[in-house]
Formats: sequence, C-alpha cells, structure tokens
Amino acid sequence: MLSAEKRLAFELVKTDGAARLGRVETPHGVIDTPVFMPVGTRASVKSLTTDQLSRLGSQAPSTQHSAPGPTGPQIILNNTYHLMLRPGVDLVEQLGGVHKFMGWNGAVLTDSGGFQLYSLASIRKIREEGVEFRSHIDGTPYFLSPETSVGIQTRMGVDIAMAFDECPAYGISHAEVEKSMEMTHRWAKRSLASRTTSALFGIVQGGVHLDLRKRSVEEIAALDVNGAFDGIAIGGVSVGEPKEEMFEVVNYTAPLLPADRPRYLMGVGTPEDLVNGVAAGIDMFDCVMPTRNARNGSLFTSEGKIHIKNARFAADPGPLDPNCSCVTCTTVSRAYLRHLYVNDEIAASVYNTIHNLSFYLDLMRAIRQSIASNSFSSFREGFLSRLSRDQNL
Amino acid sequence: MLSAEKRLAFELVKTDGAARLGRVETPHGVIDTPVFMPVGTRASVKSLTTDQLSRLGSQAPSTQHSAPGPTGPQIILNNTYHLMLRPGVDLVEQLGGVHKFMGWNGAVLTDSGGFQLYSLASIRKIREEGVEFRSHIDGTPYFLSPETSVGIQTRMGVDIAMAFDECPAYGISHAEVEKSMEMTHRWAKRSLASRTTSALFGIVQGGVHLDLRKRSVEEIAALDVNGAFDGIAIGGVSVGEPKEEMFEVVNYTAPLLPADRPRYLMGVGTPEDLVNGVAAGIDMFDCVMPTRNARNGSLFTSEGKIHIKNARFAADPGPLDPNCSCVTCTTVSRAYLRHLYVNDEIAASVYNTIHNLSFYLDLMRAIRQSIASNSFSSFREGFLSRLSRDQNL
Repeated sequence: MLSAEKRLAFELVKTDGAARLGRVETPHGVIDTPVFMPVGTRASVKSLTTDQLSRLGSQAPSTQHSAPGPTGPQIILNNTYHLMLRPGVDLVEQLGGVHKFMGWNGAVLTDSGGFQLYSLASIRKIREEGVEFRSHIDGTPYFLSPETSVGIQTRMGVDIAMAFDECPAYGISHAEVEKSMEMTHRWAKRSLASRTTSALFGIVQGGVHLDLRKRSVEEIAALDVNGAFDGIAIGGVSVGEPKEEMFEVVNYTAPLLPADRPRYLMGVGTPEDLVNGVAAGIDMFDCVMPTRNARNGSLFTSEGKIHIKNARFAADPGPLDPNCSCVTCTTVSRAYLRHLYVNDEIAASVYNTIHNLSFYLDLMRAIRQSIASNSFSSFREGFLSRLSRDQNL
Repeated sequence: MLSAEKRLAFELVKTDGAARLGRVETPHGVIDTPVFMPVGTRASVKSLTTDQLSRLGSQAPSTQHSAPGPTGPQIILNNTYHLMLRPGVDLVEQLGGVHKFMGWNGAVLTDSGGFQLYSLASIRKIREEGVEFRSHIDGTPYFLSPETSVGIQTRMGVDIAMAFDECPAYGISHAEVEKSMEMTHRWAKRSLASRTTSALFGIVQGGVHLDLRKRSVEEIAALDVNGAFDGIAIGGVSVGEPKEEMFEVVNYTAPLLPADRPRYLMGVGTPEDLVNGVAAGIDMFDCVMPTRNARNGSLFTSEGKIHIKNARFAADPGPLDPNCSCVTCTTVSRAYLRHLYVNDEIAASVYNTIHNLSFYLDLMRAIRQSIASNSFSSFREGFLSRLSRDQNL
C-alpha cells in the first residue's frame, strides 16, 4: 500500500543488461514494468467495453505466459485534450473522476494535452503563459498552461499526470528546437509546482539533437519543487522522423535518465519498437497502433503482421494467431474474422482490437519473463529474427 | 437428449390462460419458451462478439430473475439470404456450419430468405419453380426455391430451418393475397419434402385477411410428408400494417395453431408486442429492434424507452436501468453512455446492444416466471400499465 503522502512508488526489481524489470505502485494498483498502456482517448479504449478491456490477454495462464503480472492491462492512457473538450473536466470531476466515469479499476495516466494541441487544435497563440487554441470539433476557445493542464489532470483523478510541454515539429532548426525546449523546461517547473495529489512525470524534449536531449535530461531530472518528478518521459519522438533517427535519440537518451524513476517513451510503437525500447532501458510505452490497426484490419501475429481482408484468409479455418489464447483466437477463425471485416460488421473492430491489444500485452509479459530469467537478450534476438524472416516470406 | 432420428422435440410444460411455458429440445441444447431470438443477420449479432452474446442478461441470479432457463440467449436467428450472398453456403458448410463459423454453442434458426427477397433483393422473376433474383450488394444472379432454400439451411447445419414462402406486401387485394398464399402452401409442401437433418417450421400467410389465415393454418398444420412441420410460424406480419391490425391477425391465428408444436411469430417486436404475443399463445419471437435501436441510441428500460443522446443524461451518474444487472448497467453510467454515443465511439453500440438484448432476455425470463407461477395475467397488466404511465411522463 502506498502511504498517504505518497502518490507513486517505483521499485527496480532487477536488470538484464539495460533492460529493467520493475514495479510501479499507484493508488489503483501495482504496474509491472516494462508495460504497454492501451490508449483510451476519450475514456474509451476504442471498440471495447471496460469489462472486455479488463479481460484482455491470454485467457489461461501457461508456461509461456507465466510472467510477472496479470494478463489484462494494469494501466491505460487517456487524453486530456479530448476529455477537456468532451465531456469536459467539470463533468468528469463531478462524476467522480475518470476511473469511475469509465468503470475502470486499474491505473490511469493522462497526457498533458500538449501533443494534441500541435497535431489537432487550431492554435491561436503560444505565449510564455500558455496556449490559446480552438477545439477541432466546434471551434470553442480554450486555454492550456502548465497550471491548467496539471489542474485538469488532477481534477480528473488520474494516477499519473504528465507535465505540460511543447512538442516541436520534426525538421525545424537546432535553434528553434532549443528555444522550444527551453520553454518546455520553464513549463516543467511550473507543472511540478502545480503537482498535488496525482503523480507527475516530466518530459524530456530536444528533437533529434543529442546535445539538446542531454541538456533536457539534466534539467528535467534535476528539477525539485517539493520533490522531483515521479517519473520521466521521452517526448517529441515518433513525430515523422525516420525510425533510425528515433532510436538514435532513444538509445542515447534512455541511459541518461535517472535509474530510480520510471522511464516512459511516449507514443511508441510497433512490437519491435517495444522490444528495442526495453533494450534501451524503457519501462513504459503507449501507442494507438494496436487499436487503430485493429479497426483497419491490420493484425499482429506471432507469425508476422497480416491484413485480414486478404482473400487468402477467406476459407482459412485456423485461429488468427495459433500462439495466442485471447478470446478472438480461441473462439473464431480467420475466415470468420475476414467475413466480419469485409461486411463492415462492428464486431470486426471488437474482435480485432481484443487480439491486437492481447498481442501487445502478451508480448510485454514475455519480455518481463525474459528479464526475470536473464534471457532478454536472446528473447530479443529471436523476436527480431522471426520478424525479419516473416517479413521476407 | 434427442434420439438420433429426432430433429426437435417440444414439450408444453404448462399453460396460464393462453400463455404457454414450454421446452424445445434441439441438437444444440434446450430452449425455454416463450423465447426471444436475437438476430445475427450475417452470423454476427451486430456489435457483439459471440463470447459477449453468451454472457448477456442478468449477471447474478436474483429472485426477480429466478425463471426457467439461463440468463443468456439459448437460440439466435441468422439470415439465409445474407449468408448465401456472403460468405456463401459452400464456405459456411466447408467451415463446419454456422455454429462453428461464429463460435456459437447454442441453437440457430434461419429464415428461408423469402422475406429478404421481397425487402432487399432485385427480383428478376417469381415463378412456380422459385425466385430468380440479383444480390443487393453486387448484382450477382441467384435462384431460390423451396428445395434450394431448405438445402442451404440444412447445409449450414442449423437447428431449425424455415419453409420457403412468399411474403405479400401490405395493402394488396384479397385475391392477390390468396393467390400468393396458395403458392406459399405449394412451396411449403415442397419445403417439407426437402427436410432432412434440420428441423423445419412451416409458415402461415394470408395477410390481414382472417379467412385466409384460417385456411393457411389448416393447410400448413395438416401437411405431412414423412411427418408434419416441427413447428409453425405466423409470417407476413409487421410488414407495414397498423399495430391493431397485426394483433387482430395474431390473436385470431395463434389459437388456431396446433398446441403440440412451437408457435413462432416472425419479426415481432417491441417489448409490449412480446408480452401481448405470449398472451395470444406465441412461443418464439425474433426482431432486429433491440440491436438496431441500440446502435441508434434508443434504449429500453424498466422505466420506459429513452434516447441516450438526450442532454438530460449528460451528467446523470445513475445506471441506464436501475432494475437491470447486465454488464452495461452494472459498470457505467448514463452520462458515460451518452458521452460514448455523442462521440461516435464504437463502444456505444456495444454497451447499448448488451443492454437492449439483456432487457429483452430478462423480460422473457420474467414472462416465463410469471407463467410458471400462474401470474402471467397480472404480470402483463402491470407491465402494460407501467408502460402507458411512463409514456405519459
């Protein structure tokens, strides 16, 4: 149990090379890391009921999956930007917070809204004080600042809030990225000063410039306003840069982060990105890929990625993934999943989401198991070589 | 257990006035009647996984729901027309039949395709032999006859097939309805002659003309080609006629049907229609209303029908229906359901479908309970008076 004054506790259980096995204690349960957080943008992990969400992953424990932690997700991510627009923070607070709102008993992390401002909103003005913007839905004007963002996340009752940052676009100059990063640092300090009941993670920026990333880690990690950040994230990646450049940043930055706090790589990524992120020392991930791909019929399997619409699955009686024991893989065939998809049945999105998220959750369990047994390196090697073999089929 | 040569067995357990409590034994389990069959048009009850389908209804048994039969559905309906177009009967048969195709262990009834021919397809020619038509999806030509329809249903492995009939439009003359009915009777005989392993129900037609309905019952009930029909349905209702006219037909026709076989009222209806249908002596119902309404945000509750989009639910922390213990009502609020609906979240359809079908299933359980305890008449009175009170609110 967390003591009353503590918002979050992190225990580094063991390491295997740079890979870390950990436990994050929150007011809504323990999270075994490395962990993947399904994205529930508007307090809904798209296509699933919260009941289904909690049942995700392998149905029956097996030796393959006997890793630390349960099969279902222990933490999900919600989007501050989307929730402040609809249904609005007042309503979420009045209804008892995001957990009660969506009937979710696990932990919740929210982003700060910063990323969505740059990707979705119509921005009126970015000032030192904060950002004036208009809703992408109906043009309503809003204002977000470090204080209002952390305030909103706290009022929604989340376990982990994120500092309000500016996310610079890929391709702008070193000087512009530096200027943006410096504002992120000033905003980080104001975010930290606003922390009350929710744990708060700082965000490292700096684009693809390693010197800036180093400075950013040093400044964010050192911040102390009634305590340091409860965890630190690498932000501003997966914004259009080539995959190699992203991993150059991640591989350089992750080891610089304090070892005694959770490390979160924001918005990443593919299954191989998760494996490579863990190899760099990352503890937490989130990405819309498994849920979004599911709705588009693009499915992750232990034998590679497939598109269920493909005619070769029309009469395929086998399970989507013979090595998966999720509800989808144990109850229906590839032929049935293709039938649902080509006929635009809503259940296609449901079945596909159940599987893709279960695949991600099972992968993280397998990763944790391999770290626990000091075999992460060979696990990674096997995983990546299977992947490249399957892609060459 | 059904004996090897039997396709279906019906036991009339008891009556309470005209209302009947019964048991229909099929190769895929026993069905407690009166029963409502959720509609799974393309081998998918829209918005739900088969796993969710099997978990529908009240989650915990209570005195209120201690009625004969489980809370989940014991039988569903699939559409022959839709399945013969996509994915095609060859594929369904090759994949082991509809049960295996959709991972469903309960019973399956299919309609004959007759109704969809008149409502959806582009008909080329109706002849004595059968109907030439083109798919409403891609124009592919098909042919359906009594023999091919029963053959397709049988090849899909359904528990109960329906005879191939012609469904006359509402508003045509007595002479035209009579002519159509006579063809339905000739087709009924050919359907019955085609029966092999699936049970087969005959269909009574005759439009809104009671003299024709009487003749139709007499001819369909008397048909005997290696045995009589395993059950008899009232077809050709709910095709545009006023509700009063429909119930004039049902109230007149149902008592004429043989008491020793299941009686099925096709395509009906609202909750009050089900209660009134049971009062007329009907055993089986199907309707797209609970699933279609769910997707449109129109929800059935013990306090009347509501539209979840209504702004008065925006901050409503209460359950959708305080008297329901389905997953939706026990895990999320009206405010959350409205939030999902107005944001076009797929989960809105899922939650709403879970509830609407659970409402129907729970209603049928309550009906069975009231017949078992000889109180159906007062149950019906209370139900209809609550309904008219709620509609006057």
